Amino acid sequence: MAVPLERRNEKASFEQTIPATSELPVHYSVLLFPAFDALDVIGPVEVLGHLARSYQITVSFITTAASASSLLNNSTHNASLTPVSTRTRAASMNPFNSSAFVSIPPTHSLADPPAQIDALIVPGGAGTRAPDLAPTISFVASTFARLQYLLTVCTGAGIAARAGVLDGRRATTNKRSWNETTALRPQGPLWQRSARWTEDGNVWTSGGVAAGTDMMLGFVAKTYGGAVARSIALDMEYEWRDDGSWDAFAYAQDMADAE
Amino acid sequence: MAVPLERRNEKASFEQTIPATSELPVHYSVLLFPAFDALDVIGPVEVLGHLARSYQITVSFITTAASASSLLNNSTHNASLTPVSTRTRAASMNPFNSSAFVSIPPTHSLADPPAQIDALIVPGGAGTRAPDLAPTISFVASTFARLQYLLTVCTGAGIAARAGVLDGRRATTNKRSWNETTALRPQGPLWQRSARWTEDGNVWTSGGVAAGTDMMLGFVAKTYGGAVARSIALDMEYEWRDDGSWDAFAYAQDMADAE
Repeated sequence: MAVPLERRNEKASFEQTIPATSELPVHYSVLLFPAFDALDVIGPVEVLGHLARSYQITVSFITTAASASSLLNNSTHNASLTPVSTRTRAASMNPFNSSAFVSIPPTHSLADPPAQIDALIVPGGAGTRAPDLAPTISFVASTFARLQYLLTVCTGAGIAARAGVLDGRRATTNKRSWNETTALRPQGPLWQRSARWTEDGNVWTSGGVAAGTDMMLGFVAKTYGGAVARSIALDMEYEWRDDGSWDAFAYAQDMADAE
Repeated sequence: MAVPLERRNEKASFEQTIPATSELPVHYSVLLFPAFDALDVIGPVEVLGHLARSYQITVSFITTAASASSLLNNSTHNASLTPVSTRTRAASMNPFNSSAFVSIPPTHSLADPPAQIDALIVPGGAGTRAPDLAPTISFVASTFARLQYLLTVCTGAGIAARAGVLDGRRATTNKRSWNETTALRPQGPLWQRSARWTEDGNVWTSGGVAAGTDMMLGFVAKTYGGAVARSIALDMEYEWRDDGSWDAFAYAQDMADAE
């Protein structure tokens, strides 16, 4: 039944750098803050769900909400693992008073994070503009040194930029929120206006929302091999852009900005 | 900042059939069964999240798990609203004993569904092959008459097919699971082998996983107007295939089947 992917022409760049199995990331974590973007999270998580059928991996979800234990210093920290919602806090973001939100229950918190994080995924969303992100930014800054990989999706790059970990690295972000997000740290990161995703050392960043799925597939290709990534894209019936430099959305936004 | 979508050439088919606001769907519900596919759900929900900024809508999530109230006949039915996980029940689906799952907390249950459902979305996933789907199938069958729209994603078409509501209608499903899913009701539905999505009367069906996002955008285009759908796709940086008859994945699978 499988498409004979191995018979296709391989892109050498994907195939020459596959690390030994012992060096592959196992423990993936995703940050969840209020008003995260749902697809920023689930696009990459869907890719990892398929990868998990071929490699032993874990995916955990870290809520940025202050835990009951850190506030009360007792042992009932699990009580703080309230599902994190995509609900916007700003009424101006919901002018029709809609109720079209989804929540994800976290497995960990900033105060009680996973013992090991090999790859940390930082999504975007309206919540990246909240005024109370200091603990989240500090967590990214302090955790970065022990990560194998950091990956940001959409305006999640704004969190990583403020943590200083994009300094000196190529990075991209949502094209419609470009000015607002890059202004958070205009110097330091080597902002790439036109890129579906970027890879610079162990840091990957993507454009807006759906671009995170292309980045995650690109990461799988680089890390586990191109055939693995293509098989997952086929399973997902996802039209993967396997070239990070492709970006029709930067172009579309440039056209709009020029009006 | 906004891209001048209204200046583009409109596709007449999307623009001529927009109903009056009073006829627009307001209440969307998504079925959640164990081992649903995460992106089958979140792709369309992401589209609805963006739509919700321009139209007043609600999105609810209906767990198919038997509720405590239906079992115990008491009033604590909310205790049954356990988050529904993508975790597969078959160990054979998880040979590396990975833990790469995500859960969604439901808002309703089959026993206590929303008072009004205008559009019901049925996702796919490994859970559509579970042996205990009779209550779910019955719910779709009994609810269908009061729906404005039914939309299925991926192997969710197998649930709708068994409910009999695809009979006499064009429908499609996941291309890699094609034989298995269409065999659930080979006669009745007018199965379309090559289609990103189908629309037949008030029933929409899509191909696998990511195709649900294209279908949902197609539904928004038909129902709210093409400019609305294109603006959402641009916000999502999603390469929307706005022609439901496009389907590279049927072709890829046909190639594989011919091996």
